[in-house]
Amino acid sequence: MQRIYTTEVAAHVGEHVRVAGWLHALRRLGGINFLVLRDARGIVQAVLDTPEALAALEGLLPETVLSVSGAAVAEPQAPGGVEIHGPTFEILSPVRDALPFPLNKPEVKATLPIFLDHAVIGHRHPARRSVMRLQAGAMAGFRATLAGLGFTEIQTPKLVGSATEGGANVFTVDYFGRPAYLAQSPQFYKQIMVGVFERVFEVGPVFRAEPHDTVRHINEYVSMDVEMGFIRDHRDVMAVLTQVVRGILGHLEAHYAPELAAVNAVLPAAPETFPAIYFPEAQELIHRLHGEDCRGEPDLAPQHERWLGEWARQEYGSDFLFVTGYPMAKRPFYTHPNPADPAYSNSFDLLFRGTELVTGGQRLHLYQAYLDSAAARGYTDLAPFETYFETFKYGMPPHGGFAIGLERFIMQLLGLDNVRLATLFPRDINRLAP
Amino acid sequence: MQRIYTTEVAAHVGEHVRVAGWLHALRRLGGINFLVLRDARGIVQAVLDTPEALAALEGLLPETVLSVSGAAVAEPQAPGGVEIHGPTFEILSPVRDALPFPLNKPEVKATLPIFLDHAVIGHRHPARRSVMRLQAGAMAGFRATLAGLGFTEIQTPKLVGSATEGGANVFTVDYFGRPAYLAQSPQFYKQIMVGVFERVFEVGPVFRAEPHDTVRHINEYVSMDVEMGFIRDHRDVMAVLTQVVRGILGHLEAHYAPELAAVNAVLPAAPETFPAIYFPEAQELIHRLHGEDCRGEPDLAPQHERWLGEWARQEYGSDFLFVTGYPMAKRPFYTHPNPADPAYSNSFDLLFRGTELVTGGQRLHLYQAYLDSAAARGYTDLAPFETYFETFKYGMPPHGGFAIGLERFIMQLLGLDNVRLATLFPRDINRLAP
Repeated sequence: MQRIYTTEVAAHVGEHVRVAGWLHALRRLGGINFLVLRDARGIVQAVLDTPEALAALEGLLPETVLSVSGAAVAEPQAPGGVEIHGPTFEILSPVRDALPFPLNKPEVKATLPIFLDHAVIGHRHPARRSVMRLQAGAMAGFRATLAGLGFTEIQTPKLVGSATEGGANVFTVDYFGRPAYLAQSPQFYKQIMVGVFERVFEVGPVFRAEPHDTVRHINEYVSMDVEMGFIRDHRDVMAVLTQVVRGILGHLEAHYAPELAAVNAVLPAAPETFPAIYFPEAQELIHRLHGEDCRGEPDLAPQHERWLGEWARQEYGSDFLFVTGYPMAKRPFYTHPNPADPAYSNSFDLLFRGTELVTGGQRLHLYQAYLDSAAARGYTDLAPFETYFETFKYGMPPHGGFAIGLERFIMQLLGLDNVRLATLFPRDINRLAP
Repeated sequence: MQRIYTTEVAAHVGEHVRVAGWLHALRRLGGINFLVLRDARGIVQAVLDTPEALAALEGLLPETVLSVSGAAVAEPQAPGGVEIHGPTFEILSPVRDALPFPLNKPEVKATLPIFLDHAVIGHRHPARRSVMRLQAGAMAGFRATLAGLGFTEIQTPKLVGSATEGGANVFTVDYFGRPAYLAQSPQFYKQIMVGVFERVFEVGPVFRAEPHDTVRHINEYVSMDVEMGFIRDHRDVMAVLTQVVRGILGHLEAHYAPELAAVNAVLPAAPETFPAIYFPEAQELIHRLHGEDCRGEPDLAPQHERWLGEWARQEYGSDFLFVTGYPMAKRPFYTHPNPADPAYSNSFDLLFRGTELVTGGQRLHLYQAYLDSAAARGYTDLAPFETYFETFKYGMPPHGGFAIGLERFIMQLLGLDNVRLATLFPRDINRLAP
């Protein structure tokens, strides 16, 4: 008999059905014994209405894998409005050990380190599982939006021959006896591929050897990268980013309602156009509204970002706010300056509820501009940049892009208090397993 | 004025249009001068019908980035049946250097090492670009098929704490002063996630420190991985693999006709069900048809696979053939034996035109079976397997899966003679750049 998912049982009331999954719980309610079976989609309960049924489950531990057959009967009190009567069982995989922490409580009752040590099991918890499902949904929404806008997917190498970005924070690999490095971002490669496909995206791992142990840092994460050519300036990139964010949220809303409900998530206010404020004007605004004079400083402090987030919410009803024109001094060497105000850049941060969510901008596109910028930053050895710079020797259009850190995006969207809770198997300075 | 793609010009005959892209060629045909402009989608020609137009392009080198405006005029002789008359130009990025090899000949005229050294430019060649577009299409077809079958996408860590698969062929990373390793496959993680989502897939990089310099080996490649639970045995996995292969081919046929034409590819014969032959029967067949007695040998030689491929083509009209039941001795320790014939396994190879394309099978799912298999293989230190084995302690359903190497798949599908030609920026024992 064909197995159906627990969530499909309600559509088969009056029929004999077979479900399969994990023994989530054995419960006694009002003198009646129930088995709760969990599969990838949900749960269903079976009434242990005969001594045989009760005996068959005697001593079974949670997470035993079972096949359950019986009659699907409508029952408004039951989860999903349906339950299985007269069940018979087949045990597919027995369990002999007690779980490190229960999976059948509304919340995971374990400290973060204990949870992470046992994440191979812990992700089975319906709330935890939902977070990882939403991660999958965010990736699908990201790709679907970009495919609709004519972007081509690329897969660029993670083993690179030189450490060109970000200096010291790079992992070294023993590559047949010589050093190689793990890519800190696909930045150079995605720019190179603008010369081929004009519009490209990549979803893949990046590696940062930052020795920080904070709630926002992990050393390997999934970067959702975009780069596009023939732009006017960074505003065209911001328009695509706005569509991507709205595309992801729309995809989650349309296809992941049960998962959003399971983690009590309320999707943010994302108007058709996100408000934007120019960096020096943001500093003026902070001075005016909060009396704090940060004018002339090269960056915004977290509190400044929070104030700006509140302002965007009040003024525009938006959980999102672009801050544009960060000072050139604070941006990477490939950043395009604002032609009208060259101490500032054609770059942006997208703040979400007052915290940075995405960074992006227009890049330099002329070969000479790269040589000048490298010289201005004091880069004396250009050999590591040779193939990257070759791209610009042979004609590159004005272009720009952005990168979204998948785990941080999910963390912020769901209001989680640690990025590790939005990561399948996080790596940090103290953790390489599971 | 809004820029349109070169491939859209034909739909605007009679209008003034603007295109933008790279100076692909300047040509003189029958006394008339033409500019050929290339963008991400195709090419269009502009007639240099005035002395001003000719003068504007004087001395421009190939790959100069240009914006071209003019009248779209139907011209059956022209590429795409249309050309631009009375063009005016804006130069967006000048070029001062001659290309390492021309990009406007029907084929790339460069040796493989020269091509790879300059791949940042070389991928702009329309035939080369098409291969990478087909790679993107294969990924999209893979994901779309699996999403339709209820699979959830996962992203598993590439930095791992222990080298558990494949022994010596693993890259070591300096992870804050202690050793970490680059994942050789997501095998363990995708099995673990069957316990959460039942059906999972991943598209991501894998790393193999194999010191082989052959046309089929690269040291970093993209693996398209699938794993699924609640299977009867490996035949359910084969059925999904068949749908995935047909899904990819269908996606390419529907959406990538220009790219397939650009590389002269003929899509293979992929019947609804792929024929399958049991390993010892394949050896009998080879003996009977070709007089070569390989019966009792633990593996098939390349010539044996070619003969089997020919047989499948003649007998079933299929370019695909499953060989099932490879001897247990040749398969990894997590492989499920054939219960009726335990020296053979519930695993398979999918041959494409007589060459192995995909490997997969049913895995062990009982905790005790893992302990027994590890002991039988003489694994004395089980510590590296601790979290992997924990999964099986807590109930896992019968499951199995497969992995498709993206670059080899494209190489074989297109009949390329080196996997490096199906790889964006290949890494091998001698190459870490670009």
